[in-house]
Amino acid sequence: MSDALRIGIAGLGTVGSGVIRLLSEQEKLLAQRCGRELVVTAVSARDRDKPRDFDMPDTAAWYDDPCALAQADDVDVVVELVGGAEGPAREIVETALRCGKQVVTANKALLAIHGSSLAALAEKVDRALCYEAAVCGGIPVIKAIREGLAANRFERIYGILNGTCNYILTQMEEHGAEFAAVLAEAQQLGYAESDPSFDIGGIDAAHKLSILTSLAYGCQVRFDAVFIEGIEDLTASDIRFARELGYRIKLLGLARRTEAGIEQRVHPCLVPLQTPIAEVSGVTNAVVAVGNYAGQTMFVGPGAGAEPTASSVIADIVDIARGLAMPPFATPSSTLEDAPISPMDRWQGAYYVRLTLLDQPGSMAGITAVMAKHSVSIDSIIQRGRSPGAAVPVVMLTHKTEEARMARVLHEIAALEPVTESPRVIRIERF
Amino acid sequence: MSDALRIGIAGLGTVGSGVIRLLSEQEKLLAQRCGRELVVTAVSARDRDKPRDFDMPDTAAWYDDPCALAQADDVDVVVELVGGAEGPAREIVETALRCGKQVVTANKALLAIHGSSLAALAEKVDRALCYEAAVCGGIPVIKAIREGLAANRFERIYGILNGTCNYILTQMEEHGAEFAAVLAEAQQLGYAESDPSFDIGGIDAAHKLSILTSLAYGCQVRFDAVFIEGIEDLTASDIRFARELGYRIKLLGLARRTEAGIEQRVHPCLVPLQTPIAEVSGVTNAVVAVGNYAGQTMFVGPGAGAEPTASSVIADIVDIARGLAMPPFATPSSTLEDAPISPMDRWQGAYYVRLTLLDQPGSMAGITAVMAKHSVSIDSIIQRGRSPGAAVPVVMLTHKTEEARMARVLHEIAALEPVTESPRVIRIERF
Repeated sequence: MSDALRIGIAGLGTVGSGVIRLLSEQEKLLAQRCGRELVVTAVSARDRDKPRDFDMPDTAAWYDDPCALAQADDVDVVVELVGGAEGPAREIVETALRCGKQVVTANKALLAIHGSSLAALAEKVDRALCYEAAVCGGIPVIKAIREGLAANRFERIYGILNGTCNYILTQMEEHGAEFAAVLAEAQQLGYAESDPSFDIGGIDAAHKLSILTSLAYGCQVRFDAVFIEGIEDLTASDIRFARELGYRIKLLGLARRTEAGIEQRVHPCLVPLQTPIAEVSGVTNAVVAVGNYAGQTMFVGPGAGAEPTASSVIADIVDIARGLAMPPFATPSSTLEDAPISPMDRWQGAYYVRLTLLDQPGSMAGITAVMAKHSVSIDSIIQRGRSPGAAVPVVMLTHKTEEARMARVLHEIAALEPVTESPRVIRIERF
Repeated sequence: MSDALRIGIAGLGTVGSGVIRLLSEQEKLLAQRCGRELVVTAVSARDRDKPRDFDMPDTAAWYDDPCALAQADDVDVVVELVGGAEGPAREIVETALRCGKQVVTANKALLAIHGSSLAALAEKVDRALCYEAAVCGGIPVIKAIREGLAANRFERIYGILNGTCNYILTQMEEHGAEFAAVLAEAQQLGYAESDPSFDIGGIDAAHKLSILTSLAYGCQVRFDAVFIEGIEDLTASDIRFARELGYRIKLLGLARRTEAGIEQRVHPCLVPLQTPIAEVSGVTNAVVAVGNYAGQTMFVGPGAGAEPTASSVIADIVDIARGLAMPPFATPSSTLEDAPISPMDRWQGAYYVRLTLLDQPGSMAGITAVMAKHSVSIDSIIQRGRSPGAAVPVVMLTHKTEEARMARVLHEIAALEPVTESPRVIRIERF
């Protein structure tokens, strides 16, 4: 058996504690699978005295300064579980690489913002920078895209990348509840952060999407190129109308290569009820990869939580222990394409539009006239005007049209007299 | 860029032609992802003159004898696509390894029967023996179990491992058709072989299951230890009754470690309609892995076909080109446990029982008396006796009981006078 692999863990929050418990509980199994022992030789966290729900490994030295841990002589692999795109997390990773350590991180924000430059640094020092846990918790989707499907050009990659949003949407549908109420409940249950803005605003999903996009399309990680809309403005009535029309609303991250460049978007979508992605409910995540040879493969599982995330962190450590190594984004970072961004206003698709308008003669005529003027045709309408003179909802699905054209239509419709609220628009995805 | 990786392909059937097309169409992409070129330097097949739907690579020498190809000096990786557990396939793989070649194969039968000894040979000569394409076509499930989920003890692994059976069952349900008619149609469409016995008899699924079991549980590949029942005896009425009771019938492969040893079984199962595995229809395959840390992950995709299988063959070649290597079953074959077989007659579960019995006074009393005698309790019954004196179907679901006990019950029931046909029994799986 080779020498033990010595692990330093920076960050002892939920995931860090899961990692330490896993390493301890499955010590023998891991040693057998790796052909060598995995030993925690260093740990670091903000508060040494905080009560913790695990036994600190007696092999581990304590570091108040995580950057000192990242430089420690008796550490081969630095596990960064501090989080955040800047500050300590970035310092730890950069320091560790510069000191010739292998690095494992669960930090999607760091990779989404600095992925390309960190990859370049890792390659320069010939060390691993692994991040299976950064995308979709316990689902080994990074490995699937980078290795298992490496023979494919990807026609499309998409998925449910944020469990909090999927939980909220599932609850809204099941209980007919409004967003704010479900969010509050999710926070109480620990499914949503006290500051949920990264999750519900689509930022977290966009971080993950930008990483998957780079791997799948061999381009630089460009979080700033992701078009993002969150789920904050969805209403129970949207979910009900969608259902009536044969759809479910999901927050998806979607990436593909178009003639104009790389398209990356995160936004609520109407997906047909009978598609596999529509069946993925609750905190579960799912990624669908459509390869030109493999066809459509789907990977489903828990997207967050101490134990699933620890599973992926350890998978990376096992890879390192087994000597499996490659550039962080599969090909050398110098070859990652600086691809143009496929402009969102040229995106083409069908739309769900919910209007609130006064139930009076000519209301619909004004709306359909605007749509006809811009050559946007209507696929179906739900109109139940039973309150003459009062505001009623009207829902339309359009045929395929261009985003920019749709924006002009909505602008003009919003200005019409019988329209009492801003139109609500959700894109439709048919796979 | 490193030296080109030189590939010899033995077998130019459906998968072989897919591999050659993929290598040619995505030559540049693969060179970029591997950091070196992939060049086909040798090919072999039974009939050189057979018309083929691809251009033979002009870099490739022809070999009438695949074992000569396996020894060729200018071949680094031998791809075995001949098939079959014995004969040429086995010879090619053994010859290639003995000559120090890396080996990639899509041959589930070979691995299921000779996996442990071939792994020992590969380790002895320090070469790769890769087989992603042997299990579930385009789904990278070998890599997921071996690497992506390497941190887990598996509580259970199960899945739809045979697309032909799943297609037949889906068609039987959708059209209310009988097995023989759907099989004939599947053969016409190319979804079933002209000799379908390996597929419909559960052998193919059992081959795949035994490979997954070895990887997941660190034990020797034991195809002979798999309990196998096929789908030949299922009727449209079973599928209809199952549906009425809230279940769908799937041919599953299931493995887990019990106190008595390793349990491996392939048989039709009633699975609750709302479970994800019940939603997998047609030729699609799916594997569910339940890890003690990762939780439940599911991998879904095309289980067969030239292009998906080629995708997985090339994924293995890419791994080799990238220098990723480990023992074939993740841990050295000398450490693979020779685990006891968990005896099937000790299996415990619930059962679906369909009886055909004469609609006459006392019929059911006789049956329930036998069940009571053996302490097998009934969960629900569908009985629609509307033909006094004629034979009618009666369907029962039992509560959990032991296989051996159930066998005794069925034996006694079959001997009862009003029972006109052998009882039909299907195990129920609730996940």
